[in-house]
Amino acid sequence: MAAEIAEQPQVWRDLLAARTDYEEVGAAIAAAAPRFVQFVARGTSDHAALYAKYLVEVGLQIPAGMVSPSSITVYGAQPDMRDVLVIAVSQSGGSPDLLRTVETARAAGALTLAVTNNESSPLSEAAQLHVMVRAGAERSVAATKSYTAELLALHLVISGWRGVSTAAADVLPDLGDQVLGSAPAVSQAAQRYRFAQRLLTTGRGFSYPTAREAALKLMETSYLTAQSFSGADLLHGPLATVDPQLPVLAVVPSGRGGAAMEPVLGRLAEQRADVFGVGSADRIAALSEGIVLPDAPEELSPLLEVIPFQLMALHLSLARGEDPDRPRGLRKVTETL
Amino acid sequence: MAAEIAEQPQVWRDLLAARTDYEEVGAAIAAAAPRFVQFVARGTSDHAALYAKYLVEVGLQIPAGMVSPSSITVYGAQPDMRDVLVIAVSQSGGSPDLLRTVETARAAGALTLAVTNNESSPLSEAAQLHVMVRAGAERSVAATKSYTAELLALHLVISGWRGVSTAAADVLPDLGDQVLGSAPAVSQAAQRYRFAQRLLTTGRGFSYPTAREAALKLMETSYLTAQSFSGADLLHGPLATVDPQLPVLAVVPSGRGGAAMEPVLGRLAEQRADVFGVGSADRIAALSEGIVLPDAPEELSPLLEVIPFQLMALHLSLARGEDPDRPRGLRKVTETL
Repeated sequence: MAAEIAEQPQVWRDLLAARTDYEEVGAAIAAAAPRFVQFVARGTSDHAALYAKYLVEVGLQIPAGMVSPSSITVYGAQPDMRDVLVIAVSQSGGSPDLLRTVETARAAGALTLAVTNNESSPLSEAAQLHVMVRAGAERSVAATKSYTAELLALHLVISGWRGVSTAAADVLPDLGDQVLGSAPAVSQAAQRYRFAQRLLTTGRGFSYPTAREAALKLMETSYLTAQSFSGADLLHGPLATVDPQLPVLAVVPSGRGGAAMEPVLGRLAEQRADVFGVGSADRIAALSEGIVLPDAPEELSPLLEVIPFQLMALHLSLARGEDPDRPRGLRKVTETL
Repeated sequence: MAAEIAEQPQVWRDLLAARTDYEEVGAAIAAAAPRFVQFVARGTSDHAALYAKYLVEVGLQIPAGMVSPSSITVYGAQPDMRDVLVIAVSQSGGSPDLLRTVETARAAGALTLAVTNNESSPLSEAAQLHVMVRAGAERSVAATKSYTAELLALHLVISGWRGVSTAAADVLPDLGDQVLGSAPAVSQAAQRYRFAQRLLTTGRGFSYPTAREAALKLMETSYLTAQSFSGADLLHGPLATVDPQLPVLAVVPSGRGGAAMEPVLGRLAEQRADVFGVGSADRIAALSEGIVLPDAPEELSPLLEVIPFQLMALHLSLARGEDPDRPRGLRKVTETL
């Protein structure tokens, strides 16, 4: 897991060097002019899909949703999918529910795109369009480099669809190396959670998927009960659970998503919450503790934001005497129906 | 809260007596023939929206999604909403983010429907179509009767849209009274969680919203860190957190959603999980403890399933010396931007 976290900037460099492959798939989608986008994914890949949902809603101004696979696999629905683009995101491309969703959607008129880290998976063969995320073999059960590679691949495809330059992404690998330099500070901070049984993560907009992924990494490697809420959803009920004994991890980068977290941080302070932040220097300064991120365009910030949380999941697992590479009860490829 | 939980069967009777109001709104939607449905909601109402998403996907065979309100309110997106029906669900009809989403969607060509428990709210005035859920004044901060009234109102509207009979729903009030009879058993079971700090809920298909709502009630009233996952998502990572010290509450009714939980219950047993179930007699028999529900059509079962969890949230809060009617840090109407 440590090695795979550290490889990420190089994975992004390789992916950017092949950017035209992704932009061309984006252009093919643009030519088909879908009017609605549906994502289907599970686990970590579901968080990459959620990131891409924001890119579609905000960047393309096209309504987007997440398929509930059980509608198709459990209840046998065959929705009318004309004018719909279905994007399936999966590290392995092997889960039967995703496969059946893509097959059903394609038969019902959808354009389908598979985003996988596996050149020849059932999913990539079922979809009309396919992009590889080029993360290389991932051995740790807790996905790290395949996650940020999915984020970047989706960003490049959607930029190609929009017909906009992807030059801004060229800053990412160097900034990633810089964020990896926070490892000693994160390892130190992880000690605070050595005996925590539960924890809450929060973020808004493009950073909400980061909060979700941070919680999943901590669950997978350190067996914490880690909840995640968008900053807005947190205020609609779950805030009642927050007191000084419930650790909070907040994603508060510069940009509009981070700014929208300001009232949430205010309410957390009223509850006397202990908040560890990852984000911009000015927002971190007001919190209990945190890691400052280098400035980056808001749409690309999720690739950087997640690194300190990946490192925290790794170091907390080690501090607890667990094996982050082999979480109990999990296999690398999860197959659900 | 106790009074409002107990009122639910009567609320459903009143709502069913006015069924033509809902069916007519459904017929008006059918006449407009939308091709996609987007829901927007927060908190408890978000769970009612998720239930309705399954009704749309399975019953109408139309693709459906949930709007991420921040795309519009934080990032200023104005998606092309022609052929889209936007359904906003809100007890109060007062949250600014829902209002702005409905206004923006309507201006962008969407047909909009507001489902509220408030006759003259900003939301109901902003949408072309409006239905009241007729739950009467709800005083407890933790929504109970307004939740099941939202479920039933959405069921009636969507049945009207489908042009199918709603006669099957007539069994609900009497079955609801029967489920309320489980209160002593639930109160007893709640004692087991007196000192629990965390808990996990799970269900699949039509019962997944019940698992989400159960977790939220327990968070709001008893300050537990209560996570919820669809049975399939649970296996994609969070299963690692499950051991005999993490209480699991499972929604396992008869029908296909409950049947799809069988492999999940098997994996939970491998982790030696302590599982409290609410559902069919044969599935409960295999678990640590549970409440048996009367048989009901699967689409309607969520109205009944949630009652034992509402009762558990109430009784656990009381057992902990808390005030379920006035959760710390929350107000009845939450306004987010």
